Amino acid sequence: MPYRHTLTDRVQFADTDMAGIVHFSNFFRYMERVEHDFFRALGMSIWDGHNEVTDGERVGWPRVHASCDYKAPLRFEEEFTMELLVEEVRKKTIRYLIRFWKKDGELSAEGRIIAACVQRDKMSGKMKAVDIPARIFEKIEAAPASELSPK
Amino acid sequence: MPYRHTLTDRVQFADTDMAGIVHFSNFFRYMERVEHDFFRALGMSIWDGHNEVTDGERVGWPRVHASCDYKAPLRFEEEFTMELLVEEVRKKTIRYLIRFWKKDGELSAEGRIIAACVQRDKMSGKMKAVDIPARIFEKIEAAPASELSPK
Amino acid sequence: MPYRHTLTDRVQFADTDMAGIVHFSNFFRYMERVEHDFFRALGMSIWDGHNEVTDGERVGWPRVHASCDYKAPLRFEEEFTMELLVEEVRKKTIRYLIRFWKKDGELSAEGRIIAACVQRDKMSGKMKAVDIPARIFEKIEAAPASELSPK
Amino acid sequence: MPYRHTLTDRVQFADTDMAGIVHFSNFFRYMERVEHDFFRALGMSIWDGHNEVTDGERVGWPRVHASCDYKAPLRFEEEFTMELLVEEVRKKTIRYLIRFWKKDGELSAEGRIIAACVQRDKMSGKMKAVDIPARIFEKIEAAPASELSPK
Repeated sequence: MPYRHTLTDRVQFADTDMAGIVHFSNFFRYMERVEHDFFRALGMSIWDGHNEVTDGERVGWPRVHASCDYKAPLRFEEEFTMELLVEEVRKKTIRYLIRFWKKDGELSAEGRIIAACVQRDKMSGKMKAVDIPARIFEKIEAAPASELSPK
Repeated sequence: MPYRHTLTDRVQFADTDMAGIVHFSNFFRYMERVEHDFFRALGMSIWDGHNEVTDGERVGWPRVHASCDYKAPLRFEEEFTMELLVEEVRKKTIRYLIRFWKKDGELSAEGRIIAACVQRDKMSGKMKAVDIPARIFEKIEAAPASELSPK
Repeated sequence: MPYRHTLTDRVQFADTDMAGIVHFSNFFRYMERVEHDFFRALGMSIWDGHNEVTDGERVGWPRVHASCDYKAPLRFEEEFTMELLVEEVRKKTIRYLIRFWKKDGELSAEGRIIAACVQRDKMSGKMKAVDIPARIFEKIEAAPASELSPK
Repeated sequence: MPYRHTLTDRVQFADTDMAGIVHFSNFFRYMERVEHDFFRALGMSIWDGHNEVTDGERVGWPRVHASCDYKAPLRFEEEFTMELLVEEVRKKTIRYLIRFWKKDGELSAEGRIIAACVQRDKMSGKMKAVDIPARIFEKIEAAPASELSPK
């Protein structure tokens, strides 16, 4: 399924804060981890320099939006599973929905990342949004609505 | 003004990533920094254990929501100013709006944090949402609508 | 072998800096990761609260020393293997040697952590060094000298 | 004094871990902070791309060694002062000694960083150690032995 990907991980000590739980900012690092793992699972890398593609096609994926709703904290050494779903694919952006599941099936958090496809402009050197290259676009599709509601 | 607080900071090397810009997750750490500085400016600490308050009143502020819209990246050694505005104060939650301004006045990012006031339940040991104590509630007010639109 | 433990991991994007390599401070987070994994592999947790031990025996492991010698940088998405060796076990401290190996067998870095066994003093509430409890001491031994030289 | 620099900072919430103290890895981020501030105080940037220097002189400062001895933990919102001393300047490396002082004068930690001056080789694209450029070398000197013992 090119719209769903899961990754199981374990909370590291350095991810916790003095409240004894995973610091809220680290959920965003976790989200990126499953996003990049999703790309690898499709035989791609989020960092295009790793692939032998033509220079003209090298793209990056800066975030234009990120958000997270926190339901139940994660603690040190706790195992959790991230479930990534492609919520929407547009010409220049991809929106991911990422759910954090505890081992017992409780929803810990639900986040979203909107990543824009960009390329360095040869003249100005600045990044500008571009259409997602076909080689990537073809591999990813949005999840059907029925898949997007939590199970 | 108990609804507005600013803090100027500089991008550290460890905050950047291989794309040469501040990693998107670090904007959430920056937001927390200005939030905590706001509390200190009001003579309080976000970590209640620091104050001589009665045990029964000790509260914490876990996040129930955090989000960020990214407009223009921040780079190593760049100075930026965070402008925190209290967007809404409810009985049990505070919503902050935080704008990141570059030195030249460009908006770099705009984020939001909703923090819930919680207390440890003496019976269960679990955190539960409680009314914001009067000693804090009295010091904070929501910004007037006119202040919330970017200047 | 209760003196050797390995863990293979992959460099995450957020671990890199604008120089395009893993930030030097993250090697210390990686070292802690293999240390904690070593404890789990022995059926223990570095965070004693997780085990059903008597209160009087609950210990923590703050670091008294940490160091790292850097040989060859790690890059985004690179797989590497951490090899932890117990270099010395004293009554109150354990010294770990951690080697970072690239996939092709090149040594990326070599670090050390000295962790002290501490307990909270019931009177003062302060942490003080204590003898490593027998239940832990018995499970760990120092690597023979022949094992400590790189292979 | 081109061999001594101080910087006062405050512990941020995200720098703490579930033990309630600054995570040991963050001392290395703090050390880098005062190192970079030292360069700025001398009118330079650690990231040479920021200066209008000739291409041929652009240098970077990867670490070949970093270490820290921990004496007393730092806690949330605690103010501390970092005292950087240039311990040794060699042709291709600089060794810094960084002391962490609590407000009451207690030594919290003492760390060292050895940074190598490197340049990208135009042929291979690889980093290689080079002599510290005169424009930098002239501005930095090693502290006299009398300055290196803690005050």
